[in-house]
Amino acid sequence: MITRDDLVALDTEDPLADRRALFVLPDDLIYLDGNSLGAQPASITATADEVLGEWRSDLIGGWTDRGWWEMPSTLGDRIGGLLLGAEAGQVVVTDTVTVNLFKLLSAAVRLRPDRAVILVAESSFPTDRYVVDAVARRTGHEVRVVPRGESVADHLDESVGVAVLEHVDFRTAEIRDLPSTTAEVRSSGALSIWDLSHSAGVMKIELDRSGTDFAVGCTYKFLNGGPGAPAFLYAASQHLATLSNPIPGWLGHADPFAMTGTYAPDPGVRRFLTGTHSVTAMRLVDGALDAFEGVDIVEVRAKSSRLTSTFIDLLDERAAGLGYEVVSPRSAEHRGSQVTLHHVEAPAVFDRLVSAGLRGDLRSPSLLRFGFAPLYNTYVEVWDAVEILRGAASG
Amino acid sequence: MITRDDLVALDTEDPLADRRALFVLPDDLIYLDGNSLGAQPASITATADEVLGEWRSDLIGGWTDRGWWEMPSTLGDRIGGLLLGAEAGQVVVTDTVTVNLFKLLSAAVRLRPDRAVILVAESSFPTDRYVVDAVARRTGHEVRVVPRGESVADHLDESVGVAVLEHVDFRTAEIRDLPSTTAEVRSSGALSIWDLSHSAGVMKIELDRSGTDFAVGCTYKFLNGGPGAPAFLYAASQHLATLSNPIPGWLGHADPFAMTGTYAPDPGVRRFLTGTHSVTAMRLVDGALDAFEGVDIVEVRAKSSRLTSTFIDLLDERAAGLGYEVVSPRSAEHRGSQVTLHHVEAPAVFDRLVSAGLRGDLRSPSLLRFGFAPLYNTYVEVWDAVEILRGAASG
Repeated sequence: MITRDDLVALDTEDPLADRRALFVLPDDLIYLDGNSLGAQPASITATADEVLGEWRSDLIGGWTDRGWWEMPSTLGDRIGGLLLGAEAGQVVVTDTVTVNLFKLLSAAVRLRPDRAVILVAESSFPTDRYVVDAVARRTGHEVRVVPRGESVADHLDESVGVAVLEHVDFRTAEIRDLPSTTAEVRSSGALSIWDLSHSAGVMKIELDRSGTDFAVGCTYKFLNGGPGAPAFLYAASQHLATLSNPIPGWLGHADPFAMTGTYAPDPGVRRFLTGTHSVTAMRLVDGALDAFEGVDIVEVRAKSSRLTSTFIDLLDERAAGLGYEVVSPRSAEHRGSQVTLHHVEAPAVFDRLVSAGLRGDLRSPSLLRFGFAPLYNTYVEVWDAVEILRGAASG
Repeated sequence: MITRDDLVALDTEDPLADRRALFVLPDDLIYLDGNSLGAQPASITATADEVLGEWRSDLIGGWTDRGWWEMPSTLGDRIGGLLLGAEAGQVVVTDTVTVNLFKLLSAAVRLRPDRAVILVAESSFPTDRYVVDAVARRTGHEVRVVPRGESVADHLDESVGVAVLEHVDFRTAEIRDLPSTTAEVRSSGALSIWDLSHSAGVMKIELDRSGTDFAVGCTYKFLNGGPGAPAFLYAASQHLATLSNPIPGWLGHADPFAMTGTYAPDPGVRRFLTGTHSVTAMRLVDGALDAFEGVDIVEVRAKSSRLTSTFIDLLDERAAGLGYEVVSPRSAEHRGSQVTLHHVEAPAVFDRLVSAGLRGDLRSPSLLRFGFAPLYNTYVEVWDAVEILRGAASG
């Protein structure tokens, strides 16, 4: 049987223990919702002051003198290097996940003009499916949905041009293995677009090494960039020269200040920029990334797995018979940094959890999701969360 | 002859004089570039503190408890009411001008399926032309360009489905009359999409009354929302039910948290939302709008016209023969809140202006643009700017 002291000991030995002080969290709250919105970095007020000070003093000059103009690529390269296994020049921070997926998918289908099918996983986040449907309708493609629990490989054939896949299922936290699936997609002659929203920042991701073609992801979950922070996109360098952004904007132009009436794309990944980006929002993301500096992402993943495993083990030991059913994979290897529970009275239980100081989230009618952010969540919080879950089940 | 004392007197009588204190401007700088990036509202630090405080304390709860979720429409309605002559339910703040134009144009051409032409003004901001070209290419439309200086009416016929027009020319500040042009477009059976980036906040705009179909615009120029602040879009209510967003995202879904795999659009203008919006960036725009509360936009336009006219008059009186040529319309009625000058040595002159404390902007090779923001620019600044221009011309 696990004891609370065991978890205190794990916190003491935790190589990431120093990271928690980099975040501000309310007292008396166990926050297990970093998979929805990351907690606030302690330094973010200073970051905001800094960028507002630049606007105040430099005004329009900030675009050239303070690196504002380059920020989509400097910040993209930083995320690529720290968290995505991507060499410079393949990642930009811009727009939202929805818009970025639209741009990449519209561009990608044109690289496979003879293939009539876009593949998408049923388990994908709804927006991804909406975008796939919309692009397919406008381009005359057929959509093929990989049913929940089935493998992508079983649905690939020579008619599939592009496969849109989520790395970690937002509902269950099940991991779809990126390297092997990417290899399967590639060997069928198709291109892959991955949504990394629920994996970036908590797992080792090697986009270059795995031969991933394209990816999108968000910065407001485990990257802690703040509510609605801008998204990133990755396009492998070998594709860049032939990709056409369906929403060409002046920021993606090869020579924006020529102000010509004809579009000529930037030679690199900046061709996927559209309009002027929010400098403030970008700088908050940049500031939030400081918490990842000097951190080995392998340690992050190890702690993530241990946090979620401990949570499941404690539920088994201490909350059996209270109506909680683990929906997420029980094998840590197949589970992202989240545990989803089923409970028939989930909405009422959720309200009691919040009152008792545990914040996860509710996916009505019956799912409770708990995200574990290895940079700031502790092992003792896992214990205390389970105690609250025990109390909440009994009403 | 105008004297500096005359301008001091105008400032004393200025009904908007109290507004300047609502902005922070560097000492020893005359900032005439509010048409590129608005100055910083003095309250913005407090606004930033407030929204960061909400994220810190409420975390994910901010989306429901702090109005974050509704912000695209609450902020859109606020801009619509204060500055666009738009009843509630027709404006959202979201994405960038580029992306919003793409969404509206893609939707609008489907309302005129039998018309093969998209009309666009040659003078439009480059991004607008790129988007028109891109949408036309993907939908099989033909692009018809209205040459600089020609009237839209002369290029309308029954083949034109949609006309994309800029309200104020970013280069010359020439106004294209919105009510009469909209009426001409409409009577030809076409739909109009206006780019209000250079007019919103400095002119009376009556979208509903003029029968405008669609509009886009930006919040970082005369609305002072900060560098790269999110854009707005307007879609007249009579069109809403039949419009299809080409980039359907979960925020535009009729029931986002149902998380269904099939898209069903919000019944209203929120169908044009895509992914999750930056709460921080939106709140800065909201805070910046406070400076417009209690202000009569007719007074703003009157001061704008007088500032630009005074600038031109002073150049005529005091800078004749120094190589400055007024490119903007000399009639205030046809001129937005900006004066553009031609000078053969514009880049060198521009550097000297900056050194002497006057910030406009340079559009190489030969144009200098000066924007006048009636909320914070003064008449005396116009005098002092012309004095600096006199000195800069002589090298």
